[in-house]
Amino acid sequence: MAAESKSTDVSEVRMEDLVSLCARRGLIFQASEVYGGINGFWDYGPLGVELKNNLKSLWWQKVVRERDDVEGLDSTIICHPRTWEASGHVEHFSDPMVDCRACKKRFRADQLDDAGRCDSREGSSEHDFTEARSFNLMLRTSLGASEDAASEAYLRAETCQSIFTDFKRVREASRQKIPFGIAQVGKAFRNEINPRNFTFRSREFEQAELEFFVHPSERESWFEKWLELRMAFHAELGFDPARIRTRPHEADELAHYANAAADVEYHFPFGWQEIEGVHDRGDWDLSRHSEFAGKDLGITDEETKERYVPMVVETSMGVDRTVLALLCNAYRVESLEGGETRNVLRLHPALAPLKAAVLPLSKKLGEPARAIAARLRRDWNVFYDESGNIGRRYRRQDEVGTPLCITYDFDSETDAKVTVRERDSMAQDRVAIDALPAFLRERLEGAE
Amino acid sequence: MAAESKSTDVSEVRMEDLVSLCARRGLIFQASEVYGGINGFWDYGPLGVELKNNLKSLWWQKVVRERDDVEGLDSTIICHPRTWEASGHVEHFSDPMVDCRACKKRFRADQLDDAGRCDSREGSSEHDFTEARSFNLMLRTSLGASEDAASEAYLRAETCQSIFTDFKRVREASRQKIPFGIAQVGKAFRNEINPRNFTFRSREFEQAELEFFVHPSERESWFEKWLELRMAFHAELGFDPARIRTRPHEADELAHYANAAADVEYHFPFGWQEIEGVHDRGDWDLSRHSEFAGKDLGITDEETKERYVPMVVETSMGVDRTVLALLCNAYRVESLEGGETRNVLRLHPALAPLKAAVLPLSKKLGEPARAIAARLRRDWNVFYDESGNIGRRYRRQDEVGTPLCITYDFDSETDAKVTVRERDSMAQDRVAIDALPAFLRERLEGAE
Repeated sequence: MAAESKSTDVSEVRMEDLVSLCARRGLIFQASEVYGGINGFWDYGPLGVELKNNLKSLWWQKVVRERDDVEGLDSTIICHPRTWEASGHVEHFSDPMVDCRACKKRFRADQLDDAGRCDSREGSSEHDFTEARSFNLMLRTSLGASEDAASEAYLRAETCQSIFTDFKRVREASRQKIPFGIAQVGKAFRNEINPRNFTFRSREFEQAELEFFVHPSERESWFEKWLELRMAFHAELGFDPARIRTRPHEADELAHYANAAADVEYHFPFGWQEIEGVHDRGDWDLSRHSEFAGKDLGITDEETKERYVPMVVETSMGVDRTVLALLCNAYRVESLEGGETRNVLRLHPALAPLKAAVLPLSKKLGEPARAIAARLRRDWNVFYDESGNIGRRYRRQDEVGTPLCITYDFDSETDAKVTVRERDSMAQDRVAIDALPAFLRERLEGAE
Repeated sequence: MAAESKSTDVSEVRMEDLVSLCARRGLIFQASEVYGGINGFWDYGPLGVELKNNLKSLWWQKVVRERDDVEGLDSTIICHPRTWEASGHVEHFSDPMVDCRACKKRFRADQLDDAGRCDSREGSSEHDFTEARSFNLMLRTSLGASEDAASEAYLRAETCQSIFTDFKRVREASRQKIPFGIAQVGKAFRNEINPRNFTFRSREFEQAELEFFVHPSERESWFEKWLELRMAFHAELGFDPARIRTRPHEADELAHYANAAADVEYHFPFGWQEIEGVHDRGDWDLSRHSEFAGKDLGITDEETKERYVPMVVETSMGVDRTVLALLCNAYRVESLEGGETRNVLRLHPALAPLKAAVLPLSKKLGEPARAIAARLRRDWNVFYDESGNIGRRYRRQDEVGTPLCITYDFDSETDAKVTVRERDSMAQDRVAIDALPAFLRERLEGAE
């Protein structure tokens, strides 16, 4: 193939461009779009679900499978309602709200500047507010045939609480000893008053959480260790070091249960924001569930016979937030020689939704090209595209982050080779068709 | 190692034994157990989550990744409420219920034989029932700051509806042409009045659904094709052919939207029950959402210019039900020579939660054995166990379905070999430590 001209310029990410790319290419778009959408809910399309699943798999691989001191869990979204009394959510997980007596709308008491005009008072912006009262952010539902208070339940506001309530069962079944952890990935729900910044603050979201149980004497060292491990994880994903940082919490911003905490923050186009939290939760959770369930969740050290409640170091990654940070980190609008531009997602190959695209130079070459795609599809997520000129097809792959484009041309018929073009450098290699699996393995997985 | 005596007898599965094994070994147990459980909700522990994830990955690999005519999706659990008006769930998805005026309890009108004694009438079993009225099975919640009717929403009762509402977006973004499908795996919720049979009928469950969109002239052939593909999938999982069957629906049991349907049924200890459904849904869903959204979801054939609403062939697998069927199918209590018995889960290696266990014959051999486990853990989910006699450690692995046990003994120190013992046959091979990755790859993945 004729080599492409090199990129010479890179622009800053504009959020609206990324949102539009995500919708157009089916990465992420508004849930129930056909009904006008639903505020704070986002669907992941064909490429988005692959990207998100790749991130979750990497997390599971590093945090659970490669460690002999972490066990996995998959608990239900609806838990026993006592869970949320013990956790403090029923009492504390709320925002102060005011109602307007005139227009009947409700607002956050600390955001009244955004309240706008009162709908019921033409020409006037004056609301008639009530006193502030607290509004719980958990989503409620009701179970069973009767609708009395006893059947009220909540959608979980965080995935970690069932790790605590399942702690004894998991510890006994897995025969783990302190220190060890329990991890899970799953959906959580918060009735955010003001969902915003694309998928950053939404009402239905996914968390990847680890609760690591340690002896009280080791809590500080494990907190430091896990903060370091989690930063190493993010570094491996390819985050620009200038746009990712840890920020220790000040004493006055610690949650009611936390003894120490640090946020992992990414510098989004809308500012520095948390994508993960690392928290020393102390013995708050196990002690509270022991008290509320009337069951001692403490443990006895087999050697010293010491009886104690383990301390918890938590790492809590927002899956959607991290996906969004990865997209912001990867997205470039590059100016090429000759005035052309290209959108590129410079995603790590392990995260890229598609690993390669097979592109016959002409539709006449479709049959052998399809055979290559089918062979590679056994091992990788591979796309096949035969429509449009080759430059346009490269651009379509660039903007969804496909690391390699494999072009089958008329020479391929005789030399049994194809051109493999790399996304970021746009450099081209001529590779024997038989050697493609090994070539892809090295380029895609050797890079991990 | 001394060879074990061969199994000579196999017993039928007893449900209570399987439930007890699942709890004891941390496969599946009651959600919020520490609070007395919550009816119809089950958590998957360390081994259960691996088994379930393995099934979901296999499904995704076969249905989505290996096909160029299927796209993946991951949509939200909470959709726009109009979705459920269009789907017919608001109107039709209900059971007839009666209330007892005396004890205030509610019962299914078609199950009054199970209603038991009236709590408020001592010594009597006479209830004072109201007329039957319909009780919707969707779980309800409410969104946003205000609690008026406009903010009411439902937890999805099935994952397929957002495939229909996202149909146009996904088709355009992926540039797919008819015939093609959209697939997703995710949670769904139904307020079952009477959850039962372990995880079989629960209130929170997972579905793996494919909606395949075809031209009206091809609906019957695609229905047959997908039924065949799905049965081939289940056959590959290792189901006993005598315990799995397809059962076409009679005309009078078809759902209101279905034109043809067949259940894939497994013969559980509690009878023949559906684990998957294959349905010809016709154009019901796309037509209804077109009508309710006021947007034409039909398509135009690029060649013939024909305008039509695609027909839908659906394959809907219950993930939890299939996991349960796999457990029932795999579970054996085997009598060994000498009067001993062993529990075995004869799971397909691709499904087994743990692929191998590394067992040093003595704790003194822990260091080199741990090194082997650490090396293998990069590629497989590998367990390490050094406590108890070797026979007992084999039994512990047998009952959670680990295909291979790798024993490091005192000879290993000099010959650099280990004994690999196979779960089902209990046959032993002596394998060079360096050759273990290749040996495992062949035994675990060659078998797929």
